[in-house]
Amino acid sequence: MVELAAEEGARIWFIPDCYLGSANIGGEPCSHEAVCVLNTGNRPARIAFTFYFADREPAGPIEVTVGANRCDHIRLDQPERFGGFAVPRDTPYGIRLASDVPVSVQYSRLDVTQPNYTLMTTIPYFLP
Amino acid sequence: MVELAAEEGARIWFIPDCYLGSANIGGEPCSHEAVCVLNTGNRPARIAFTFYFADREPAGPIEVTVGANRCDHIRLDQPERFGGFAVPRDTPYGIRLASDVPVSVQYSRLDVTQPNYTLMTTIPYFLP
Amino acid sequence: MVELAAEEGARIWFIPDCYLGSANIGGEPCSHEAVCVLNTGNRPARIAFTFYFADREPAGPIEVTVGANRCDHIRLDQPERFGGFAVPRDTPYGIRLASDVPVSVQYSRLDVTQPNYTLMTTIPYFLP
Amino acid sequence: MVELAAEEGARIWFIPDCYLGSANIGGEPCSHEAVCVLNTGNRPARIAFTFYFADREPAGPIEVTVGANRCDHIRLDQPERFGGFAVPRDTPYGIRLASDVPVSVQYSRLDVTQPNYTLMTTIPYFLP
Repeated sequence: MVELAAEEGARIWFIPDCYLGSANIGGEPCSHEAVCVLNTGNRPARIAFTFYFADREPAGPIEVTVGANRCDHIRLDQPERFGGFAVPRDTPYGIRLASDVPVSVQYSRLDVTQPNYTLMTTIPYFLP
Repeated sequence: MVELAAEEGARIWFIPDCYLGSANIGGEPCSHEAVCVLNTGNRPARIAFTFYFADREPAGPIEVTVGANRCDHIRLDQPERFGGFAVPRDTPYGIRLASDVPVSVQYSRLDVTQPNYTLMTTIPYFLP
Repeated sequence: MVELAAEEGARIWFIPDCYLGSANIGGEPCSHEAVCVLNTGNRPARIAFTFYFADREPAGPIEVTVGANRCDHIRLDQPERFGGFAVPRDTPYGIRLASDVPVSVQYSRLDVTQPNYTLMTTIPYFLP
Repeated sequence: MVELAAEEGARIWFIPDCYLGSANIGGEPCSHEAVCVLNTGNRPARIAFTFYFADREPAGPIEVTVGANRCDHIRLDQPERFGGFAVPRDTPYGIRLASDVPVSVQYSRLDVTQPNYTLMTTIPYFLP
């Protein structure tokens, strides 16, 4: 049994640096980004994703669900996770997440433009 | 419609590790850094950049604007974004950002000194 | 002598993006992740690790001890650190840490799937 | 002129994942870590570094000074910055920094064990 605190996480998260390149050397793994959500609570998290761009109106919100007591690495190159919405390729963007229950979030990117790929990661900004 | 909190972000941000190398293997992408700003508010953000160095007085402040409901990946190798100010190459530096409205910020660097490039990223330090 | 604050760290930490690949080019270093714990206090830290997955119930908690005035880079590919529990390979997961004394934590991953490896790191999310 | 807040930064910082490898392919750049300090205040920062290890007593504190209105990328492979103290190679360690004035800090590592190097960075944990 894991003893939980009252509020394990935050509800609103911001990822200013998102980018999904179209260049890939082929095969697996391919370049992708993931919004990794850890929900240690006993209720599923309904998370609204809104996508922001440099030169157009935001897209969304689009709801994604992460189960109770689950950790879900939500890949941004999989439109099936976003009700068919496809993140535009080769376009700088940012994401705002709003969850109905507290969760913790980490953003990572794997870039496979070149034979030896590279990783980056950070905990996003959040409202306390 | 996205329902917003009263203050989505922070006003003062600090990036202690900036570095813009001059070595590049040529072609695109070239080495660069980006200060990525997400402005989920309904007013444009006027952001004052000040550049700090190890052995000389700070440069700036220089104002950059990011539109309402926009996400802007501001590249530090583009003097046109900074009123002509060119970040010195091969020189360790740091940045302080002061915005008139709350924004969220992420700093990333792409280093293409060698054929297989590398990425790093972090949410900067900010005043709560 | 180091003069310490009353509470040097936090007790509950969350790492949403963990992944231990099975692909390795062989030899050392091999791909691994580390939960790095810095305990600047005068008492050992007893830390309960719970592992969360996308499609199954959480595993744990499993207790790991970090000595007083010690910094321990706990490798997630070493079941001997976790009472024999082996983190599943090629499986996205997340970790919740609960320490009985305040500690600071950093999560890093070294990926050696390809000849030129890549690193990523972040301070996890924590409860203030 | 830059208008400053009363407290631009924090005084105590923690970096749990430090590592200075001895393997290098030769030439420049060589593998190194940097503790990057941004001091936007009008007084020099006197910063006490304490080094923590897995299996021995801490080393330090050792004082390093960063000037007012300066950004200093302090390399951990330069004993001259630490009064002659040489960080042990190939040894996991962590750092606690205590500054007499508020500063902001970022930790980065450049690993040149292999021909195509890799970077990682994060804002360390700090006491609010």
